Amino acid sequence: MSNNSTATMQQSFPMNGGDGPHSYLNNSHLQRQATNASRIMIEEAIAKKLDVKCFTSNPFRLADLGCSVGPNTFIAMQHIVEAVERKYLAQGLKSEMPEFQVFFNDHVANDFNTLFSSLPTERRYFACGVLGSFHDRLFPESSIHFMFSSHALHWLSKVPAELLDKNSPAWNRGRIHYTSGPEEVSHAYAAQFEHDMEIFLSARAKELVFGGMIVLLIPALPTGIPASHIPIGIMFDLLGSSLMDMAKEGLISEAEVDSFNLPIYATSLEQMTSLVERNGYLIIERMELMDPTSKHVLVSGKDYTMNFRAGMEGIFGEHFGSGIIDEVFDRLHKKTVEFSHQLESSHNEGTQLFVVLRGNDVV
Amino acid sequence: MSNNSTATMQQSFPMNGGDGPHSYLNNSHLQRQATNASRIMIEEAIAKKLDVKCFTSNPFRLADLGCSVGPNTFIAMQHIVEAVERKYLAQGLKSEMPEFQVFFNDHVANDFNTLFSSLPTERRYFACGVLGSFHDRLFPESSIHFMFSSHALHWLSKVPAELLDKNSPAWNRGRIHYTSGPEEVSHAYAAQFEHDMEIFLSARAKELVFGGMIVLLIPALPTGIPASHIPIGIMFDLLGSSLMDMAKEGLISEAEVDSFNLPIYATSLEQMTSLVERNGYLIIERMELMDPTSKHVLVSGKDYTMNFRAGMEGIFGEHFGSGIIDEVFDRLHKKTVEFSHQLESSHNEGTQLFVVLRGNDVV
Repeated sequence: MSNNSTATMQQSFPMNGGDGPHSYLNNSHLQRQATNASRIMIEEAIAKKLDVKCFTSNPFRLADLGCSVGPNTFIAMQHIVEAVERKYLAQGLKSEMPEFQVFFNDHVANDFNTLFSSLPTERRYFACGVLGSFHDRLFPESSIHFMFSSHALHWLSKVPAELLDKNSPAWNRGRIHYTSGPEEVSHAYAAQFEHDMEIFLSARAKELVFGGMIVLLIPALPTGIPASHIPIGIMFDLLGSSLMDMAKEGLISEAEVDSFNLPIYATSLEQMTSLVERNGYLIIERMELMDPTSKHVLVSGKDYTMNFRAGMEGIFGEHFGSGIIDEVFDRLHKKTVEFSHQLESSHNEGTQLFVVLRGNDVV
Repeated sequence: MSNNSTATMQQSFPMNGGDGPHSYLNNSHLQRQATNASRIMIEEAIAKKLDVKCFTSNPFRLADLGCSVGPNTFIAMQHIVEAVERKYLAQGLKSEMPEFQVFFNDHVANDFNTLFSSLPTERRYFACGVLGSFHDRLFPESSIHFMFSSHALHWLSKVPAELLDKNSPAWNRGRIHYTSGPEEVSHAYAAQFEHDMEIFLSARAKELVFGGMIVLLIPALPTGIPASHIPIGIMFDLLGSSLMDMAKEGLISEAEVDSFNLPIYATSLEQMTSLVERNGYLIIERMELMDPTSKHVLVSGKDYTMNFRAGMEGIFGEHFGSGIIDEVFDRLHKKTVEFSHQLESSHNEGTQLFVVLRGNDVV
């Protein structure tokens, strides 16, 4: 039953903890915009598709998978609790209004101390922290009524092994991601994501109570657009070329760049649909591409850089040593200025997948 | 529903976090001995009194209230899980063996990062951290099957206000505890404990599922023995006199000592019995005084000093400033050597209360 036997095999690089200038807490407003953009869609899913009448037992349990340290997770959980309360009222079930219990989940390396100390004092739920990878079982069978995950599922459980094999056509020399790389590299990433999602969907299906709902927000590739034309794809290329510049200047070695790959993957609507259907334990209530930010919001190169640093400093420090972090992200920032036109004209529309799933009662 | 409105009024001084030389993790073997001494009694309570047949729902949920950072809590939870598994087998319910979910509870200031990173990898349960004071609601109604608390309930929710009032007969001048103090001081402590226990028992009764069980291990005063004759009472007196020595030498002020009181109280079998009965929501299955250590174990003054420091460094640092911590505990250690005869001949027998409670189904 332990969720640790496989977890120890997995890579875990948490968002930056604490509340300092490079913390995720202070550099996650892009993820927050993305969650806000989906707020109405989540409320709609709960209002129209969540059948609270079939929940016989108090309390109502929610989980945020890959919650990081806040504040985004607190905002999202509060919205969901309020939407569920409205649903109970709308169904004339005021007297059966449940108590709420929220499970904040992330890797064991996540800064749970910061998460806990920043929890809203006026919350209307009992709060728990749950450590462990969502690429594994996290909760007892049939115990969660509503699962949510925002901007977390694009993290793979590990870097595909063949990327590091010099004899493989998927050896990813001189790059740190599949963006702008050969097809074999993309295929290796895709295969890893498919493997991870099979485990994720099966685990969640077991944990979901009968009639429960899952809402996922996942960074995604819009149909027909190459990875190198969306903002994060451009950022990966700029990060890779920053590192290669540093290698050419002798600050790091080329071998270090060759052996480094970011375990991050952008799925597509088509791939995700086929993965859920192939798994078979869950049914798609809604799946569509949406814009992660309002069209009127201009995201600057600095915003992207700070956001990347808050999310990826750990993984870079682990591989290259923490001494080069400032240099890497200074160079990245300069490149975002140099390539600002490319970033501004990139395809930011439809780069987020909104997914609503529920249990497949027929299986 | 929030368990924070009152929690913010309460004082919270966690055990020392991390894994350093003064950490609770490395200085909690006295508490571990005490828990181990009760192991057979806990197994017996589960084997004879826990009616698992009345639990219709999977999973089986356990909570450790005031768990600190481990390893004691992991050892205790593992023992309880195994004892419950044996009970299911003994009742011929192998096919209905539940999954287990353990809720590790402590104040928000507890070092949950250390707790989580030291969780046993081979555990047979799903683990959660629950922040908040047990002097308040922590869990949804009827959601926990087995609650455990070891060496935590002697912490009061706050220092009684009258101890700091110069016009009150309970003003605790020149002392840091009720041990060896006037009756009025003891009464103020007792009244606070009674208030705290009323809240504790009512909250736990709500959270316990029908047929569930509560086991408590609480440092206590043996019948007819004054507080100044048990080891921790002597330690409180030695701590107080160490501080008064420092005040006389001008290292701290007497006013600082006068305004400092440890919110720690040792109940008695008689008092606890009357509190549970007066509350009325729970029934006593077993309550008795026991020895916290084997008779053959000699606890040294150094052991006591290290143990006190791991548990109380935070509360001393908060009041006197962290700069005097080493000095205070160095002096305490010297005093334990000076008064070693008094410590060795003190009443260590019967200084732990073992309590088994279950829901009062009649209420």
